Amino acid sequence: MTEVTNSDAGWLSREDMDAARDRLPILYIDAVPVRVDDHGTVTAIGLLLRLGEDGQVKRALVSGRVLYHERVRSALLRHLEKDLGPLALPRVPPAPQPFTIAEYFPTPGVTPFHDPRQHAVSLAYVVPVEGDCAPQQDALELTWFSPEEVREPSVLAELANGQSRLVLQALAHLGV
Amino acid sequence: MTEVTNSDAGWLSREDMDAARDRLPILYIDAVPVRVDDHGTVTAIGLLLRLGEDGQVKRALVSGRVLYHERVRSALLRHLEKDLGPLALPRVPPAPQPFTIAEYFPTPGVTPFHDPRQHAVSLAYVVPVEGDCAPQQDALELTWFSPEEVREPSVLAELANGQSRLVLQALAHLGV
Amino acid sequence: MTEVTNSDAGWLSREDMDAARDRLPILYIDAVPVRVDDHGTVTAIGLLLRLGEDGQVKRALVSGRVLYHERVRSALLRHLEKDLGPLALPRVPPAPQPFTIAEYFPTPGVTPFHDPRQHAVSLAYVVPVEGDCAPQQDALELTWFSPEEVREPSVLAELANGQSRLVLQALAHLGV
Amino acid sequence: MTEVTNSDAGWLSREDMDAARDRLPILYIDAVPVRVDDHGTVTAIGLLLRLGEDGQVKRALVSGRVLYHERVRSALLRHLEKDLGPLALPRVPPAPQPFTIAEYFPTPGVTPFHDPRQHAVSLAYVVPVEGDCAPQQDALELTWFSPEEVREPSVLAELANGQSRLVLQALAHLGV
Repeated sequence: MTEVTNSDAGWLSREDMDAARDRLPILYIDAVPVRVDDHGTVTAIGLLLRLGEDGQVKRALVSGRVLYHERVRSALLRHLEKDLGPLALPRVPPAPQPFTIAEYFPTPGVTPFHDPRQHAVSLAYVVPVEGDCAPQQDALELTWFSPEEVREPSVLAELANGQSRLVLQALAHLGV
Repeated sequence: MTEVTNSDAGWLSREDMDAARDRLPILYIDAVPVRVDDHGTVTAIGLLLRLGEDGQVKRALVSGRVLYHERVRSALLRHLEKDLGPLALPRVPPAPQPFTIAEYFPTPGVTPFHDPRQHAVSLAYVVPVEGDCAPQQDALELTWFSPEEVREPSVLAELANGQSRLVLQALAHLGV
Repeated sequence: MTEVTNSDAGWLSREDMDAARDRLPILYIDAVPVRVDDHGTVTAIGLLLRLGEDGQVKRALVSGRVLYHERVRSALLRHLEKDLGPLALPRVPPAPQPFTIAEYFPTPGVTPFHDPRQHAVSLAYVVPVEGDCAPQQDALELTWFSPEEVREPSVLAELANGQSRLVLQALAHLGV
Repeated sequence: MTEVTNSDAGWLSREDMDAARDRLPILYIDAVPVRVDDHGTVTAIGLLLRLGEDGQVKRALVSGRVLYHERVRSALLRHLEKDLGPLALPRVPPAPQPFTIAEYFPTPGVTPFHDPRQHAVSLAYVVPVEGDCAPQQDALELTWFSPEEVREPSVLAELANGQSRLVLQALAHLGV
């Protein structure tokens, strides 16, 4: 997941955020970007190549924190635009029901999802993306994989924090 | 619901379809056409004005039969194009999970849904529509209602076969 | 919603919780307790009668905060037991997907949901309850309503914070 | 899937059913029987060992046709009782929304699901089972597998008609 402190926005200092992270589950969104054909069938899944805080390069979904007084829908759009660029044309689903939730625990093994920094609970959505994607900020690249390719163990192994599980859950939900 | 016999396609004669209707549940789709804004929030729901077999004018959802050897997704697109015209640009959702199912019984009162001709089980989807809609065939008109307007008892009362219930279920699912 | 500070558990002082509430969305669960018959059809919806902090008596769903390092499923069970007593035998659904999410904003009118104390995002579940319910703590009473009764404007008007909307969404999801 | 002609009930002769199968999609249900613990977490998935019409032994889900004038909920219970016995105590979910649909085509390769006899569209549900299961009729045995065991390629390979895909979709939906 991305660095979540949004110091520009001034909502929370790094110290206060760190304090909150020790004491509260933090609300996140995860978006699985997909390409669809004319029939709405998913043809590709997009994964980011991201430079982690530890200097390692990892694949990742679009993911980030929901801010105070921000709608979940707005948080989805903000993180999609931040990671995919302003011309991506994401189609955020009209219904608020996520296809699943992912519980990232600081302790490994409690759930398939793990985040050493915090306890985060993420609302997961599949988001068709119709425009041109240009990775931004700490996202180095966006790669589109066919459903078959993304299921390859070598691709899944590049996903951090248990997000390979979330990708497989999205594929199952999509029936591809 | 629309007349479902598709004699042009030659799959089933009117007599055979009538016989099947006396003995089997018939698989349908219901589509709730919606307009969404930039954030994916639903701003309007589209209802058809349709001339029924009894000569009465009624409001209706996009609805119709799934044919032999036809994907559900293709049936959705076929009925949307048939009723809204070829330039409607419907965005059929990427996941096959319907938001609910509607069980239309020939006997009134078994469920909120009723179809005097048959026992039909319908898979219900919300479908964002981005293009221009031009009602076709027996659809006289398509009217866009805001979520508040469509909840008006006078509008709901114009929907036949219990589809007012399905519209309310769609609004609830959409959170508007 | 219930008072959420859990000072017994020592996770967060009242002051720290108040500070967090000014800066972060707080993760909640909402549970709609239902009675089902042999076929799994919902026959009744349970609403609590609760004494609010302002001394007013209001109807409410089972609702409360997810704690640090607590699974969503465990939070659901904890709040159900706290409000309905230890013999309620709730059947928490096996899948983590909520039927919707409710975004409670401190500012009225942003969404249908409102919480003057905080920005809370709640994962909403329908939970069949099979045992005997005995309201606990600040819950004065649990009343079972048929789907028709709970839709009465007089009943819906007794629900605070926009939870009448959530009850209607649950009924729509349940198809009753 | 099971032999679906229900000659006892007299709804449809074998010949008429065969004729309908050549011309209409047939409505089915698929049920994934699960055991859950006190928290509602799935601990085991039940698969039937079934003697197919071709004399081969295969694993299968609980699966069967929805009859004319039968509720989907009743069809689920009927097939669960037929395959698991009268003491299985299945908890059919209160909401009619299936977790997915499976489109079984007579032509292999159109979808992951295949049924040489017919085009069947199946509504798929996860059903917690609390009682004692005693396989009936052509079901030879019911075996409970942990989520890890059922993912084993050797177990998945024993499922016919593409139902291994449906089992994986259920596991993904359940988050286990």
